[in-house]
Formats: sequence, structure tokens, C-alpha cells
Amino acid sequence: MSEQIYVGVDLGGTAIKVGLVNAEGNLLQVFEGPTEVPKGPEAVIDNIEKYVRQIVEESPYDWSQVAGVGAGVAGFTNVKEGVILLAPNVGFKDVPIRSILEERLGKPIKIDNDANVAALGEVWSGAGKGIDFCVCYTLGTGVGGGIIIDGKIVQGFNGLAGELGHMSVIPDLEAIQCGCGKMGCLETVSSATGIIRMADDAVKRGDRTSLSLLEEAITAKDVFDAAKAGDEVAIRIVSRAAYYIGKSMAAVAVTLNPQRFIIGGGVSKAGEFLFEQIRESFMKFSPEPVTRGVTIEAAQLGNDAGMIGAAGLFIRS
Amino acid sequence: MSEQIYVGVDLGGTAIKVGLVNAEGNLLQVFEGPTEVPKGPEAVIDNIEKYVRQIVEESPYDWSQVAGVGAGVAGFTNVKEGVILLAPNVGFKDVPIRSILEERLGKPIKIDNDANVAALGEVWSGAGKGIDFCVCYTLGTGVGGGIIIDGKIVQGFNGLAGELGHMSVIPDLEAIQCGCGKMGCLETVSSATGIIRMADDAVKRGDRTSLSLLEEAITAKDVFDAAKAGDEVAIRIVSRAAYYIGKSMAAVAVTLNPQRFIIGGGVSKAGEFLFEQIRESFMKFSPEPVTRGVTIEAAQLGNDAGMIGAAGLFIRS
Repeated sequence: MSEQIYVGVDLGGTAIKVGLVNAEGNLLQVFEGPTEVPKGPEAVIDNIEKYVRQIVEESPYDWSQVAGVGAGVAGFTNVKEGVILLAPNVGFKDVPIRSILEERLGKPIKIDNDANVAALGEVWSGAGKGIDFCVCYTLGTGVGGGIIIDGKIVQGFNGLAGELGHMSVIPDLEAIQCGCGKMGCLETVSSATGIIRMADDAVKRGDRTSLSLLEEAITAKDVFDAAKAGDEVAIRIVSRAAYYIGKSMAAVAVTLNPQRFIIGGGVSKAGEFLFEQIRESFMKFSPEPVTRGVTIEAAQLGNDAGMIGAAGLFIRS
Repeated sequence: MSEQIYVGVDLGGTAIKVGLVNAEGNLLQVFEGPTEVPKGPEAVIDNIEKYVRQIVEESPYDWSQVAGVGAGVAGFTNVKEGVILLAPNVGFKDVPIRSILEERLGKPIKIDNDANVAALGEVWSGAGKGIDFCVCYTLGTGVGGGIIIDGKIVQGFNGLAGELGHMSVIPDLEAIQCGCGKMGCLETVSSATGIIRMADDAVKRGDRTSLSLLEEAITAKDVFDAAKAGDEVAIRIVSRAAYYIGKSMAAVAVTLNPQRFIIGGGVSKAGEFLFEQIRESFMKFSPEPVTRGVTIEAAQLGNDAGMIGAAGLFIRS
């Protein structure tokens, strides 16, 4: 029982998920509790501490075996200083989480943003296992990304490497403004939000589509279901989302020539229907030599990627 | 005199340039001789050996002080195996240059392609000195690139990282086919070849431009000179070249968030006139946080970058 273990924390707006992870990247045990954002940052930090201690107490491991606690959070992080700069979902602004938790838990702490830790998790023990050179896309409310070279997260000069959702890939004439202020970002068409917007626009325009018959607000899943059922408007929307993901991957491929692209997040659940179109677009825009042996695959860890990757910050950095 | 020195070889189709470089990246001495491609690969290799020995003999350094010989070549290289896979300018195909030169010279040998070694040279002792996270563009006959992270060249899975000229950035409706077989590559508008093509097209179309008065074949320099003199057609061509370089940089920036972009090659001699437009386009397409503290600067080493970077393969890899 002298094996070292790691705690991975997935700090979300609703729940804090805490996982025990061994040095091989296996998730051994999970605990989940409410974040309690309305009670303020102090209460959230109290909860993190409580859940981390609790999962270890309830495990066959001893506290002394915990070699480190990693945390991933949706937001801007200063990885070097261990500070969460801005995480609106959690209500954190300039919280020096590393020093706070180091003092409270007496363990080494590492942090990074959610897209980076999810990417690291997938490379460590999911769809990128054994592949040290991967680029991960997370297709959710927005489009996130993580760049893994030699098995490690690339941070970039301002810690903003992997902001793939903000690659401007839509031609100027068709571009709309993104939340970031710029025009034509990938996120405006390939996120769940973008897909829903295109569907809402089509319905408002009066396009003939089964989506106009839905009684509740259209979801991205509705659009994929309609497309799979042959609805032409929905097919066009999905094709557009896939086309620009593939085009952005081609831009990444000539820049970094990664071995594998991994796609996770809610939108990726559309499965092969979506993936085939992404691959087609990727091949269309990539010089052949850059595509040799390169694969585009679905993430495997689902919501566990964050906990596993957060623990992985200790093994892979 | 026990200082270690390195020899950097810039293997070109016309000339082989050989430089003595110290451990600080200073180019101490240069020798240049003909490549003699028509005599075949054996003769070219003989020349490399001869010039390397000659520059050291003519220097104040002793052969025993040579710690390594690095070489850069325009073409596809297998860096790990030390093989030049295909270098049409030099007439090399599958030449295991490392093992051949190691045997002949009795020194460690390293190789890489010309864009990568030029990038490394600039980061080591030119426009990227002290900046470990740089992306370099070489605007010449084609558009080459080199990605430097933590002071080292990123090779990619197939050794094709940094093929920035083949990023598809031109909208489908305006795209033409690139030499690589794909549509809309940056190289089709932002290389010297691309600029000349756009100028030739304008003249053929009968656009009103001073370029139509030139008696000899239009060069990229002619286009820049005309643009600087106020020729509207030439201005439009230069703007288009700059626009897509800046747009591709924005794509690189959200992927890697480098600290500095360095632009070299013949086309870059157009100077601030070109650079200002590139910066404007980069800012237009990049989310503000990704641009903070990021600079776009001209390469400083000119044709010496290859020799210096080739020597740098020993210090920076």
C-alpha cells in the first residue's frame, strides 16, 4: 500500500467531481458534490477541500499516499502561478487556488483549464493512449481545444494555446461575430450554440424543415436527429459544422502535423455521422503527406477526462 | 583554444555555404563553393566534405574543436534517421547523408529542412533571440515555416510541422489549385510566385497598371515597387498577399499562442509597407487576449540563417 495516488478535481459550476487516479491513469474511485457557487468562493474552496479529503478517507488508500492534487476549471488560468484568473461559472476571479489548497491540504497542487486537462486525460488514458502528439477538440457550448506535444500540454505565451474555437475559418461574406468580438470563428458554426443558431435562423426564415415542428427550443441533438432522418435543412447545418471543423484541423495539421485528432464534448455524440464529414473536409484541405497515418477519433473518457487529466498534470508536465 | 565550434552547412542547388559558428550562435567565418548538382550526388557529397574541411583549415580553430556539423536543405528530410528523402534542387533522393558524412568527417552530423533551420537560426541569434516560442514564415518562391517551442524545432508526426504555405486560407470561391494539389493554400497568393501570378493575371486581363509597361517578366519586387508608388492594382495584390499571411498567423496564434512571428525570405524585403498590412490582418482575425505582447518582426539574419540554424541543431535539440 505504498503506491502513490493522485486526486483529480473537475471544478464545474454545478458540481465538483473528485477522482482518485493511479500512476497509470486509471480512475479508481469517484466522488461528486455540489459546488455551491452562490455561497461565494470561500465556500467553494471549502467544498473542494472537503471532497478531496472525503474521497481519500473512503478509499483503501492512506492520505500519505496522495502525491498531488490537480484541478481543471472552465476559465482562464495562470498555470505557472497557480491562479484562476477568471472562471465565471464558478464565480472565481484572481483566486490563487494553488497556494490556498497547498496550505489547506499540505499536498502539491497543479491547475489548468478544462479543455487542456480533458485533452491530457484522453492522451494519457483514453483515445490518445500511446500517442504523444495529439490535438483535441471539445465541441460543447463553445469549441475548446488542447494541444499535446510529446505527451505534454502546450500552454503558449499567454496560456492561450489550443483556443481552437476562435480560429477564423468562415469566409468574410458569411461570417458572423463571435462572443470573442472577432468575425468568423469556428465556434460560431461548430459549437452546440452555433448549430442551434443556424437551426433557429432556418426556422425563422421559413425553410421547410421538421425542426419547425418542435414545440420546445431546438437543441443540437434535435438537429442531428433530424439530419440523420433525412431533413435537408438539418443535413446542411451539420455539414457546415463538420466542414469548418475539418478545415480548421487542416490548418492545425500543416502547423503541427499531429498524429491524432480527438473530438469530445456533447456535440461529438452525434458519432460517425458527424465524424465522416469532418474527415472528408480534413482530407479536402490537407496536403496528402500531412495526412499520412493521421486519424480523427472520438474521445473515450467522456466526463471522466477532466478528473483523469487533472491528476495527469503531475505525471505529464 | 579549447573552445568547441560547430559547422553549419546550407546545402543549396547552386552553392554550398559553410559557416563556422560558436556555441553562442555567432557566425565566425564563411566559405561558399559550387554545389555541382549535374555531377551527381556523390560529387555533391564530396564537395560538402571538402568545403567543411577547408573552412576549418583556414580558420584559427583546430579540427578537434569541431563538435558537430549540421546541414539544412530544401526538401523532405527524415531528421531522426538523418536521411534526405527528396531534395530536387540538389538532386538527392533517399540519401543517408548523416551516416555518409559521419564516416567521412568523423564528427556528429545533424540535418533538417531549410525552413526549420532558418527558423532555429533566427530564434538562436536573430530576430527571435531570447524568445523561445516563435513561429517563422519564409516568403520566397514558396511559403515555408518553422515552429519553435521552448527553443526547439517542432517536427510533427511525419516531420511536416511548419508547412504554413499549405494552410488553406483562401475562400473556396476565390481559391486556385496549389502545387501540392489542394485548393486555396496560402502559398498561392503570398509567395513570390503567387504575387507574380496575380500581377500577370491583372496585366492579361487588361487592368490599368504600370506593371503592364514592364518589358521583362514581372518580379515580386516590381509589384512591391509599383504598390509603393501608388499603383492601385499592385496595391490590391500586395494587400491580398498580406491579408492572408495575417489570417494564417491568426490561425497559428489560437493554436499555439506564440510570442513572436518572424518573417523572412525574399518577399519580406518589401519591409514595413508589407508588415503593417500583415499586422492589421493578424489583429483583425485574432481574439485580443491571444495578441497581447505578441509581435510580428522581420528576420535579421538573411541568408546566414541557414548556416547558423544548421549549427544550432546541436545546441537546440
